[in-house]
Amino acid sequence: MGGDKAPGEIVTGARQVADAGTIKVLLVGLPGGMGDTGDLPLLECSEVIGMDDDPGQGVRRKKDSSLVRAAEAVRDGQAMAMVSAGNTGATMASALLRMGRLPGVIRPAIATPIPDLKKSYPTVMLDAGANAEATSAMLLQFAQMGAAYSTERYGVARPRVALLSIGEEKSKGTPVIKETHAVLAEGGHGEFDFVGNVEGRDFFEDQADVIVTDGFTGNVALKTLEGTLRFLLGTLTGIFSLPEVADAAGVLLPHLLPLAATLDPENTGGAMLLGVDGVCVISHGSSSSVAMVNAITVAHDVAVGGLVDAVAASVTGSG
Amino acid sequence: MGGDKAPGEIVTGARQVADAGTIKVLLVGLPGGMGDTGDLPLLECSEVIGMDDDPGQGVRRKKDSSLVRAAEAVRDGQAMAMVSAGNTGATMASALLRMGRLPGVIRPAIATPIPDLKKSYPTVMLDAGANAEATSAMLLQFAQMGAAYSTERYGVARPRVALLSIGEEKSKGTPVIKETHAVLAEGGHGEFDFVGNVEGRDFFEDQADVIVTDGFTGNVALKTLEGTLRFLLGTLTGIFSLPEVADAAGVLLPHLLPLAATLDPENTGGAMLLGVDGVCVISHGSSSSVAMVNAITVAHDVAVGGLVDAVAASVTGSG
Repeated sequence: MGGDKAPGEIVTGARQVADAGTIKVLLVGLPGGMGDTGDLPLLECSEVIGMDDDPGQGVRRKKDSSLVRAAEAVRDGQAMAMVSAGNTGATMASALLRMGRLPGVIRPAIATPIPDLKKSYPTVMLDAGANAEATSAMLLQFAQMGAAYSTERYGVARPRVALLSIGEEKSKGTPVIKETHAVLAEGGHGEFDFVGNVEGRDFFEDQADVIVTDGFTGNVALKTLEGTLRFLLGTLTGIFSLPEVADAAGVLLPHLLPLAATLDPENTGGAMLLGVDGVCVISHGSSSSVAMVNAITVAHDVAVGGLVDAVAASVTGSG
Repeated sequence: MGGDKAPGEIVTGARQVADAGTIKVLLVGLPGGMGDTGDLPLLECSEVIGMDDDPGQGVRRKKDSSLVRAAEAVRDGQAMAMVSAGNTGATMASALLRMGRLPGVIRPAIATPIPDLKKSYPTVMLDAGANAEATSAMLLQFAQMGAAYSTERYGVARPRVALLSIGEEKSKGTPVIKETHAVLAEGGHGEFDFVGNVEGRDFFEDQADVIVTDGFTGNVALKTLEGTLRFLLGTLTGIFSLPEVADAAGVLLPHLLPLAATLDPENTGGAMLLGVDGVCVISHGSSSSVAMVNAITVAHDVAVGGLVDAVAASVTGSG
């Protein structure tokens, strides 16, 4: 039921995946409120948590909402994973409250893939917004969970983990960042290599496979990156649409479209909530059917691949 | 003496400004260590604080360094403003320790102009990195100083001030951000209008004239924005250089170059340290002579325009 283009594009994407035959899709929503659902099975609910609803209140009060029911379906083994393009906070709260945290996890975090043309797989940044503040113990676990995710999803054997700061030196940043640097630099925290601090300018420079930060900084950085890409690509589209450059644009477009496609968040498969006892994919609110196909496929693949067990095994410290 | 291209490009830019006749330029540096300085007067010093020196130690130990002497020249009325492309931390420390804070200012902040094609003047973001942490009292002063700067430098009569957060709602963000939102929403803090929170995606969307944040978040956001622009413009340059698109590229380039020029940090005139008792412009470490000309011109213009008095008058609360 969630997302700016729901239910049309969401259901269309779900049907496309199901029609391909490999993945079974269970819709969760209002009967009669989802348009043409074709042959897809429907888990009926009677409520919807809207984009503007308070996440915590929404989950507590709307116990028969599509988000809460989807999380329960995962908890109860009726589904292997949940995918939502709806209210991000409510998606997280539903997953956290119904699936529960993995043992030892202090707080779940949102892991977002960021394409980097200098390597063949994306960089994972976390936390992209689940926790506005983070302690060094939480940031250590983000490093561990992010590394497990990089290994499981992208096959990176021993991911390079970096800490997002405002200078390369270990003396740079807030007290929490400096403390986290010291903890990570000790080593021995798992199957990854700590490569020190990175800065905001390093996202496209193949400096790391996992970039660790608190959810406030991570959310600002991610939205700044996406907003800058959207602004520049939009401005270029305007220039390329000028009548006087039509022929030249026709020559260059075939070279530019693969770049635009690589950078389009629709194609990354969505963000992943790590640290809960189940697979939960958070797709962009603006998700089209293409984004849905990618998100559902990723959710399926990591669920089959054993992501949750790998994340659980990665975490040390206690929650 | 500072900057990746010092002394060549720095001195060249300084000479170009002086040759134009309106602005008098005083170089500060090692005699014999600045190349061909032409007719420019030189304030001699015997030391240099390098890019890798610790800022605090550098300023304390190298009392006869070019940065310290430049700040003293402003303090003593020998110069109206200082401009540096050198060690940012040491530039700030020199200005702070030699010029001193303005009365009532808790902590100075770095204000950086960010071009926004949807309006005719840049947005000012502060703090871009002077303070890794900020209290709500500091953030209120950043709003006041940033508004005074927007008015003095860009002629914005009543700037729109926004707070950088992770959602538009006042309930979003860290405790300090929520507290600052409440303080700013009260109104009555000066000649500006608080327009609420903005997100990282809003930098190019004409949402505000001044964007307030702590120096950690601001530095990450600025470097993410600049890094994303550099990555995308660099990738485009590569595509436009392909032999098979040479003719088409020739048609499109005249339309693209003004955009690239607008977005180039070389052309913004550098960042400004607000809250010290003097004008201090911090130019990019990679500054060319073009960047130097712009930085010196901006420094001159705001000094003549009375920026320091305007900033001093804007600040309430106490330091």
